[in-house]
Amino acid sequence: MPERNDIENLSHLGQEETSYTFHYDSSLLETFENGHPNRDYFVKFNCPEFTTLCPKTGQPDFAALYISYIPEVHMVESKSLKLYLFSFRNHGGFHEDAINTIVNDLVELMNPRYLEVLGRFTPRGGISIDPYANYGRPGTKYEQMAETRLLYHDMYPENINNR
Amino acid sequence: MPERNDIENLSHLGQEETSYTFHYDSSLLETFENGHPNRDYFVKFNCPEFTTLCPKTGQPDFAALYISYIPEVHMVESKSLKLYLFSFRNHGGFHEDAINTIVNDLVELMNPRYLEVLGRFTPRGGISIDPYANYGRPGTKYEQMAETRLLYHDMYPENINNR
Amino acid sequence: MPERNDIENLSHLGQEETSYTFHYDSSLLETFENGHPNRDYFVKFNCPEFTTLCPKTGQPDFAALYISYIPEVHMVESKSLKLYLFSFRNHGGFHEDAINTIVNDLVELMNPRYLEVLGRFTPRGGISIDPYANYGRPGTKYEQMAETRLLYHDMYPENINNR
Amino acid sequence: MPERNDIENLSHLGQEETSYTFHYDSSLLETFENGHPNRDYFVKFNCPEFTTLCPKTGQPDFAALYISYIPEVHMVESKSLKLYLFSFRNHGGFHEDAINTIVNDLVELMNPRYLEVLGRFTPRGGISIDPYANYGRPGTKYEQMAETRLLYHDMYPENINNR
Amino acid sequence: MPERNDIENLSHLGQEETSYTFHYDSSLLETFENGHPNRDYFVKFNCPEFTTLCPKTGQPDFAALYISYIPEVHMVESKSLKLYLFSFRNHGGFHEDAINTIVNDLVELMNPRYLEVLGRFTPRGGISIDPYANYGRPGTKYEQMAETRLLYHDMYPENINNR
Amino acid sequence: MPERNDIENLSHLGQEETSYTFHYDSSLLETFENGHPNRDYFVKFNCPEFTTLCPKTGQPDFAALYISYIPEVHMVESKSLKLYLFSFRNHGGFHEDAINTIVNDLVELMNPRYLEVLGRFTPRGGISIDPYANYGRPGTKYEQMAETRLLYHDMYPENINNR
Amino acid sequence: MPERNDIENLSHLGQEETSYTFHYDSSLLETFENGHPNRDYFVKFNCPEFTTLCPKTGQPDFAALYISYIPEVHMVESKSLKLYLFSFRNHGGFHEDAINTIVNDLVELMNPRYLEVLGRFTPRGGISIDPYANYGRPGTKYEQMAETRLLYHDMYPENINNR
Amino acid sequence: MPERNDIENLSHLGQEETSYTFHYDSSLLETFENGHPNRDYFVKFNCPEFTTLCPKTGQPDFAALYISYIPEVHMVESKSLKLYLFSFRNHGGFHEDAINTIVNDLVELMNPRYLEVLGRFTPRGGISIDPYANYGRPGTKYEQMAETRLLYHDMYPENINNR
Amino acid sequence: MPERNDIENLSHLGQEETSYTFHYDSSLLETFENGHPNRDYFVKFNCPEFTTLCPKTGQPDFAALYISYIPEVHMVESKSLKLYLFSFRNHGGFHEDAINTIVNDLVELMNPRYLEVLGRFTPRGGISIDPYANYGRPGTKYEQMAETRLLYHDMYPENINNR
Amino acid sequence: MPERNDIENLSHLGQEETSYTFHYDSSLLETFENGHPNRDYFVKFNCPEFTTLCPKTGQPDFAALYISYIPEVHMVESKSLKLYLFSFRNHGGFHEDAINTIVNDLVELMNPRYLEVLGRFTPRGGISIDPYANYGRPGTKYEQMAETRLLYHDMYPENINNR
Ligand SMILES: [Ca+2]
Ligand SMILES: [Ca+2]
Ligand SMILES: [Ca+2]
Ligand SMILES: [Ca+2]
Ligand SMILES: [Ca+2]
Ligand SMILES: [Ca+2]
Ligand SMILES: [Ca+2]
Ligand SMILES: [Ca+2]
Ligand SMILES: [Ca+2]
Ligand SMILES: [Ca+2]
Ligand SMILES: [Ca+2]
Ligand SMILES: [Ca+2]
Ligand SMILES: [Ca+2]
Ligand SMILES: [Ca+2]
Ligand SMILES: [Ca+2]
Ligand SMILES: [Ca+2]
Repeated sequence: MPERNDIENLSHLGQEETSYTFHYDSSLLETFENGHPNRDYFVKFNCPEFTTLCPKTGQPDFAALYISYIPEVHMVESKSLKLYLFSFRNHGGFHEDAINTIVNDLVELMNPRYLEVLGRFTPRGGISIDPYANYGRPGTKYEQMAETRLLYHDMYPENINNR
Repeated sequence: MPERNDIENLSHLGQEETSYTFHYDSSLLETFENGHPNRDYFVKFNCPEFTTLCPKTGQPDFAALYISYIPEVHMVESKSLKLYLFSFRNHGGFHEDAINTIVNDLVELMNPRYLEVLGRFTPRGGISIDPYANYGRPGTKYEQMAETRLLYHDMYPENINNR
Repeated sequence: MPERNDIENLSHLGQEETSYTFHYDSSLLETFENGHPNRDYFVKFNCPEFTTLCPKTGQPDFAALYISYIPEVHMVESKSLKLYLFSFRNHGGFHEDAINTIVNDLVELMNPRYLEVLGRFTPRGGISIDPYANYGRPGTKYEQMAETRLLYHDMYPENINNR
Repeated sequence: MPERNDIENLSHLGQEETSYTFHYDSSLLETFENGHPNRDYFVKFNCPEFTTLCPKTGQPDFAALYISYIPEVHMVESKSLKLYLFSFRNHGGFHEDAINTIVNDLVELMNPRYLEVLGRFTPRGGISIDPYANYGRPGTKYEQMAETRLLYHDMYPENINNR
Repeated sequence: MPERNDIENLSHLGQEETSYTFHYDSSLLETFENGHPNRDYFVKFNCPEFTTLCPKTGQPDFAALYISYIPEVHMVESKSLKLYLFSFRNHGGFHEDAINTIVNDLVELMNPRYLEVLGRFTPRGGISIDPYANYGRPGTKYEQMAETRLLYHDMYPENINNR
Repeated sequence: MPERNDIENLSHLGQEETSYTFHYDSSLLETFENGHPNRDYFVKFNCPEFTTLCPKTGQPDFAALYISYIPEVHMVESKSLKLYLFSFRNHGGFHEDAINTIVNDLVELMNPRYLEVLGRFTPRGGISIDPYANYGRPGTKYEQMAETRLLYHDMYPENINNR
Repeated sequence: MPERNDIENLSHLGQEETSYTFHYDSSLLETFENGHPNRDYFVKFNCPEFTTLCPKTGQPDFAALYISYIPEVHMVESKSLKLYLFSFRNHGGFHEDAINTIVNDLVELMNPRYLEVLGRFTPRGGISIDPYANYGRPGTKYEQMAETRLLYHDMYPENINNR
Repeated sequence: MPERNDIENLSHLGQEETSYTFHYDSSLLETFENGHPNRDYFVKFNCPEFTTLCPKTGQPDFAALYISYIPEVHMVESKSLKLYLFSFRNHGGFHEDAINTIVNDLVELMNPRYLEVLGRFTPRGGISIDPYANYGRPGTKYEQMAETRLLYHDMYPENINNR
Repeated sequence: MPERNDIENLSHLGQEETSYTFHYDSSLLETFENGHPNRDYFVKFNCPEFTTLCPKTGQPDFAALYISYIPEVHMVESKSLKLYLFSFRNHGGFHEDAINTIVNDLVELMNPRYLEVLGRFTPRGGISIDPYANYGRPGTKYEQMAETRLLYHDMYPENINNR
Repeated sequence: MPERNDIENLSHLGQEETSYTFHYDSSLLETFENGHPNRDYFVKFNCPEFTTLCPKTGQPDFAALYISYIPEVHMVESKSLKLYLFSFRNHGGFHEDAINTIVNDLVELMNPRYLEVLGRFTPRGGISIDPYANYGRPGTKYEQMAETRLLYHDMYPENINNR
């Protein structure tokens, strides 16, 4: 297995006195270097503890987020991702804005080949909302990949009975 | 994250004295502006509390609706969608008419790039009915998208035992 | 198997032009005679399509009801039970009032040895409510049965994630 | 393991030209001898393929039956039980009559220490019915066993959504 | 929503004295007119209460049927479909013959653009059989659709443990 | 059904401009009057959106809470319960302290006959914690009820694999 | 429905004195004639009771087999398939050899258009093995079908926790 | 943790050249010494790979066995238990005879305080059989334990649909 | 909510440079003070990542542990519990020895009123083992509680198919 | 079925005194010869007992691995695969490094036509990570196969709630 020389640069991982920020702050995100840049492969983060505030009513919304990407040079470090997602906690925003913002921030951070974010929010008024957005690097085959995956997105909607 | 200036125009969201209409009324639907019009992305509404009346027998029918779309300029506001769906409550209609009507109303409202509606109804006489209809804007790649998604629709029918 | 002579007296079962009432009306309930009065046994009705209106906000609430009882002389006919439950459709009432009302009406109708009603309602504002009430004929062992079943009610709350 | 001498007396098991009777006939039931009469133990039959006709409307009803008992001398042979249950196929009867009839027939056949029958029927008109009846030999501790099992019957009604 | 003028022509729906035929009779099937002929959309019937007789042994077989189609002018009325499926009840036939017969009858009845039937039968001797057949109108793109859906049919066989 | 005269006194239900407090405040709780005080019955609240902060690390914890009680005179209003639970959002506390605090606050508020609170928290470091506390009014049979329910609490721990 | 004239030729179906062979014997397989040779359709056999012996250690292995095919002229009779699969019972063989052998034997027997076999074996030493092999008639479109189905085989591996 | 001195006496565990016997042989069972004889505790074996032959038809039957006991001095070693269960593989016996035989053999082997065996067999002819037998050492409180556990056995029969 | 003064004494919680010990060491366990000593309540730890070594073969075994207790003065701190459980990682021991050792260590550490430990291990050779042990403080009602919970332990063995 | 001549060369299978290495060692892997080299087919290993150490914090991580491949000449022997995976037990490495290393080692060992590895890890800090990497032999159609399977990888992320 390859030796990792860059883990010492990570400021959050294994840090004792982590301070949690609860207002949106994309500067919390950190990266390390991909050890396998010549191979296309996926990394998925399952993040079931996402919460934010409704911009109109101020009440909390809850979601599970699923973030998948194909790295090139930079990879987002998972503890910094956790802190970044916690920074939405007291921030107001619509469901689809949160998902698009996360796509934009992670694309800017990592310049990945491909990336997608799915949110499954808990219901408000008997209806729940699941936004999904993705990105493929423009001018590459990954741009077409994004289009193809959007084309076939969620053709089997899970059964939801609000119980 | 982008600032939203248009949420003040929504007449239902956070409204105290919401009045519920129980006869079909598509004018209940309201929109707000898509903050990410340059990106194709999906928004899905899970609506498990849909109910209408059988036009012949007058007895209630129940369904879970799943509405997915790719917005362009306009997006349906979720509380107005809830009121619109409640307006079917005392209205008579066949299952597939309800689904096609919802597709037509939402297409007219939002002029989306793509939209689909799936209904899973509870059984009557030992048989349940699941209609599915979709729409892609004519003359665009989304028209082909609708055809492709219909082609591959529901190739894994869920096991139903009426229990 | 015993011959049933009383099914001709049932006014709803197999009736062509059933008319549905959507305002609370306990007179819709009908009974037939228990063919096995010397044996204590249970009959359970699973009723997943119960809906009523919130008395304050006017919006629909949805629930699955589970009604179980030990008959003596009279048994509630299932189609009349359906019509009775539909009569709550446009009626306003709190969750626990609906369940207690159903207990009271069915006890008055059938004078059963034992009866219980459980409701599982869909969430409002992120919280769902499950009322449970039961009845044992006073002065009999069934009164103690009701107390025992309440004592051990729902010691394994089902996992609810609002998805 | 004990040698079984009585399996040659079974007329149905392994029989080539089984003829199936589709009208109620309890004489189809056959027994063999319990090889372990000094031990109280349970045998349960899971019978998911039960069907009968509604006495009023003539339409088929479907159920899964669960039959459990503690044998003394006689045990019901499973293929004869299958033939007996098939004999309800074109017979009319209410749900609770079928369950009580099966209890009565099996008690008469085997004179067991304890026996119970549960039916889970598919819904008609949005409501499904689950009857449960049991028996303990009168004047023995099994009579008290039947009462205790009825007392605690089905305190966790399964979630039914008619899908 | 469109007004339906043709529901008066349906002879089974809401009929009081429905008589059930238990020998195969495709003339029971009735149609009504598709209100949305310009849109390709799917209607699926979940039919978990199918039963027929084994032509060799005479014993009942049980299955859940899943029927999906894209209508053009005619749509099968669901209560007539129920009666038609019940007419297999005392009819003998192999599993795959039943499924092919249903495809043929429904194609002849409706002349649909596309249609498919899946059966999931309960096991006999430790093995269960699931036939699947489909149809696309010859000489149209739906013929190719049928071929494509057959090509990708059931690539994820569900886990079956016979329990 | 009984008329409710007290719903006008509820300050939160149906309120337009709800303001959410995110620091612990038990004064948010409100009650209404039990309409069925002569019957012992259960009301359960399923609350899957509970979140608080770890007092040591400051990071958010998430839980589903299940609150069940038998009312006497006062019943907690569900929207006020929601606001009360939201008030833990930015408050620090150990898992078992939160559950005991909720028991204490609800007992003081309602003086119920019986009450219990179960929390199912998401894991930290590969271990998740599920506290459970209950209360029966001292000197009554409900005190014994609390002891009995604790005695038999959770004898079937659900399978947890942290996925 | 078509009349079947060939069921009299089947030597196993409905046979009283079936003798079971427990050493591999492909001559047990029998066929009947496909009644629908002009239509491409699938028949799937779910066979959860497969067992064989490890050639090295001699201990039993267990699997569920899933066999799917598109018939042309000949179809394998299900009881003969059961006997054939039982013939592996005391035979030694690696998992993937068993699956390939079954493919070869059934192809030789039926000369089908397409055929595939999936095995899900129980674990040995904490690891379970799932072999999958398929066949399309060479020089036809079914050869390409086999390649396509292999290309997309099992892209959603089921969660296995060995419990 | 206590040191184990007796594991060297086990003849099967870790043995290279294990030979498997496929005819019933209770002498395969071996024991080791309980390290915690002063505490009553349970050990459960989950054995999903049990198979035997029908004494009448000769065809294989399959079951999952669940064996639970409270040890005193001797504990059955799990590999020897595996070999013992494999020895039923080519042996004929009724379902309830197998379960009673296993109870008898393990009681004789270990002289446990308490022991129980449950079998869940796969269906034959649409019906599956689940025998359950238990044992408590006569003249001790464990005899009463066996009676109590039989009294409350399987009050929630699992849903079986033969799929 | 009560203030906690003792969290500063915990040496592991929030510690930066945690060192993990992989050989059994019960001195890793730490406690804090129960803030609610006058109430009997349960705390459960779900620990799905337990692993140890087989003392005979040296190969890893895996289990999910479920630890429940009623505290009096001392409560085990969850991060120290994690470290303690990790210390079994390279330690050899039989399944039931591990469970009994954990009971003994936690009883000595906390002197709780009641405590129980359940292990669900992954299978070896097709059989999995689930030990369960509990403790009630001798001479108190909790001793009887332990006996009662053992009496009713696991009367519904979960279905295990080794997949 | 084909005779296997090469199983004698396997050094681990059926070996009595297996010694387990807990530091990464790819030389543990062994192969045997594919008996069906002319057919493309899949073999999948389900490996739910994978564990390694975090390179930064030293704490154990846990995962289920799913390894699928199409063999040509060489096939990895499953017991040697088990030993190889155990060799990660005390080795430090990031999740995605482990998965890429396993891909590299198995490709070097077997020179397969196609191979893929999926890992599902348990959460750390509320987030779990699922890496997926694959390989198709360069310059063949399998290289395109790898690209296609990556393109469609995991379009239905499973619901994760960390419970
Ligand atoms: Ca839900
Ligand atoms: Ca539910
Ligand atoms: Ca259902
Ligand atoms: Ca069910
Ligand atoms: Ca649960
Ligand atoms: Ca969900
Ligand atoms: Ca469903
Ligand atoms: Ca099943
Ligand atoms: Ca099962
Ligand atoms: Ca999964
Ligand atoms: Ca499990
Ligand atoms: Ca199924
Ligand atoms: Ca499993
Ligand atoms: Ca499985
Ligand atoms: Ca989870
Ligand atoms: Ca889980």
